[in-house]
Amino acid sequence: MGDQVQATTTMEKIVSLAKRRGFIFQSSEIYGGLNSCWDYGPLGVELKNNVKRAWWKAVVQMRDDMVGLDSSILMHPRVWEASGHVAGFSDPLVDCKQCRQRFRADHLEGDRCPECGGELTEARQFNLMFKTFMGPVEESAAVVYLRPETAQGIFVNFQNVLTSTRMKIPFGIAQIGKSFRNEITPGNFTFRTREFEQMEIEYFVRPGTDEAVHEQWIKDRFQWYLDYGITPERLRLRPHDQDELAHYARACSDIEYYFPMGWSELEGIANRTDFDLKQHEKYSGCRMDYFDPATNEHYVPYVIEPSAGADRATLAFLLDAYHEEEVNGETRVVLKLHYALAPYKVAVLPLSRKEPLVNLANELWRSLRKNWMVDYDDSKAIGRRYRRQDEIGTPFCVTVDFQSLEDNMVTVRDRDTMNQDRVPIAELEQYLKEKLGF
Amino acid sequence: MGDQVQATTTMEKIVSLAKRRGFIFQSSEIYGGLNSCWDYGPLGVELKNNVKRAWWKAVVQMRDDMVGLDSSILMHPRVWEASGHVAGFSDPLVDCKQCRQRFRADHLEGDRCPECGGELTEARQFNLMFKTFMGPVEESAAVVYLRPETAQGIFVNFQNVLTSTRMKIPFGIAQIGKSFRNEITPGNFTFRTREFEQMEIEYFVRPGTDEAVHEQWIKDRFQWYLDYGITPERLRLRPHDQDELAHYARACSDIEYYFPMGWSELEGIANRTDFDLKQHEKYSGCRMDYFDPATNEHYVPYVIEPSAGADRATLAFLLDAYHEEEVNGETRVVLKLHYALAPYKVAVLPLSRKEPLVNLANELWRSLRKNWMVDYDDSKAIGRRYRRQDEIGTPFCVTVDFQSLEDNMVTVRDRDTMNQDRVPIAELEQYLKEKLGF
Repeated sequence: MGDQVQATTTMEKIVSLAKRRGFIFQSSEIYGGLNSCWDYGPLGVELKNNVKRAWWKAVVQMRDDMVGLDSSILMHPRVWEASGHVAGFSDPLVDCKQCRQRFRADHLEGDRCPECGGELTEARQFNLMFKTFMGPVEESAAVVYLRPETAQGIFVNFQNVLTSTRMKIPFGIAQIGKSFRNEITPGNFTFRTREFEQMEIEYFVRPGTDEAVHEQWIKDRFQWYLDYGITPERLRLRPHDQDELAHYARACSDIEYYFPMGWSELEGIANRTDFDLKQHEKYSGCRMDYFDPATNEHYVPYVIEPSAGADRATLAFLLDAYHEEEVNGETRVVLKLHYALAPYKVAVLPLSRKEPLVNLANELWRSLRKNWMVDYDDSKAIGRRYRRQDEIGTPFCVTVDFQSLEDNMVTVRDRDTMNQDRVPIAELEQYLKEKLGF
Repeated sequence: MGDQVQATTTMEKIVSLAKRRGFIFQSSEIYGGLNSCWDYGPLGVELKNNVKRAWWKAVVQMRDDMVGLDSSILMHPRVWEASGHVAGFSDPLVDCKQCRQRFRADHLEGDRCPECGGELTEARQFNLMFKTFMGPVEESAAVVYLRPETAQGIFVNFQNVLTSTRMKIPFGIAQIGKSFRNEITPGNFTFRTREFEQMEIEYFVRPGTDEAVHEQWIKDRFQWYLDYGITPERLRLRPHDQDELAHYARACSDIEYYFPMGWSELEGIANRTDFDLKQHEKYSGCRMDYFDPATNEHYVPYVIEPSAGADRATLAFLLDAYHEEEVNGETRVVLKLHYALAPYKVAVLPLSRKEPLVNLANELWRSLRKNWMVDYDDSKAIGRRYRRQDEIGTPFCVTVDFQSLEDNMVTVRDRDTMNQDRVPIAELEQYLKEKLGF
């Protein structure tokens, strides 16, 4: 099946466009970069924020049964003992004795170095949590970790959320935030990085109802990627085999996207059972059970966890939006981003820098940006400006020409169809609201 | 002047309300908490996100001359050598030889322990940067820091932003993100914490124009707090004395709020001169100058930096919104948050849980939340539900009663005036849009 699927473009082309247009830069580039860390530029921060907002709207704002949370990155170290991360969150690491490169043993085919053919050391377990010291002395008592997942911030607040809201099971808690994993082999642009942003849900259910709820979340989350424009052929569901399940999971399905390097995980939707809450009950001595007024029972709920990567989702939306088209013998690059995800919704393009035309264009810019992020571009030929807006995914270009001064109308060009409408200025805002849908 | 100003309430009352209503919880509370780390609950995450959006809208979306950025927390360690943080970002630390407590020497009045009167050690410099190790071995070559400010992520991307956008000086770059400082004495709830979120702007100008631009940013940023509802008497500007300026700053003014513990900094607006860009030029070997097409000159720009704390701003808005009023002999607690900052904009309150009334209420809830965060509450007496919404700052309550089924109208209650309007359901969305202003 994967053989018939085509990626929209190569990773090299996206990396290049991302840098040239200000979506994504290499972190600390002037110092030679920092392995696997990336910075979102002026367009990238808008795109990623829009992805996060679209997620929040779908999983919090539009649902009956969800609330949000934003817990801190630094947590009490006992949290990671309870969760099993201190003891078990590690990958097997080997070194090449000859060239000193390091590899994940479980990613190697043979028993010699894939780079130089040298001899490898025995594999040893390497814990992926970043550790640091809190308080004014470096000592083992002060060790804290950068969280490797946002999930635990939700579990330890389970009772706080119950007592401060009127939520009843089944209900869920959603969170967006940075996590850190000291990956041995990061790579593929922003796909696998040591610092990354997660969009996680922990959804609490009565044991016995977990399988049906799991199925429903898989459907809902799969549909979300389609709703925001991912091509169906490049999206698939892959249930985990029993032997690849994490220690806490009873079942898990990955939503995968067909990236340039092949099918890779966008989001995992796991049935974590009551593992985490019971571990925290054991380690903290605090009760983690729930009294269900519907059934008059006390129980520790089961948990369904849809866990998505904000950076991966952003990369997938960027890749999937990429199109090259032939227009009048030239190649047009256009990002067909969903309107809600596009960094700028509108660009105002004056045909001249002279007064009074430029005043009218400025006035329109300032008035429209009360509603949306709006770009303004008065440089070079109008055709080049259209291409520039196409390449960054701006849905509508508003061109102000000399005729506009006479008839109080402007030309609105559609990114995807390239059709142009002549629209009265007095109706422009309403016209764009209807087209954009918000 | 400060003597006549009153705080709205005590910190204890806000901490209690914040926990009870789900604004802010102590981090890792079930493990006894983690000193100075806090989690934002279901309402807190909405409030803080709204503060960040209001800032972004004012400093990016609504301006001609600004773009955004989102750089990574982990950066190349040379960044912090260039910025001066490795050598100089430290506080003088003393220990009590008797009770082992640690203090900032510059915060102590005498030369003996303020807790037990014991003898103190000599002061030693303690660097406030958290350090960690990147890559699979703990060794000095792998030391990286958690950024102590987001600013440097902007400076190192100065040329990237210039080449990927069409920005011309004067222009600025805005960023929101987490920073970390290993404070010796954090405290005052979310006011001073070791993990915190910044909202920073670096605004690049031609040397010689810096003083006027500095003044303008001070005015603009001061006004922003007023625009979002801070009481003018509790906001003041405090220019720094020469001897309290940071090593990189030529001038700085703080915007201060009258917190329960007194006047304290919300935001600092500094003139950082060309210090940072010149340091990065020196340490990286990359040019940091700018060719100004208006004057045909090459120069390294000066930088004006309005640097605000997202947590502090959120706390100030929460405190300032707090009101206790006498209504019919009872105390009404109401958060008079600016509509744009309120966690929920609307609450739908059905007078009964029976059909068909509850169906109508559900239908309204689902329809309104396409536009805003909307709460739903069907528990207990309507008076209690109004008080609950008052206490979390919801601007409008929509009550669905039996009459609604007959006349297709609902009652809309205003949080601040407590006035009630009877509004046709068909006009409800438009009515709320006009009242809310968005």
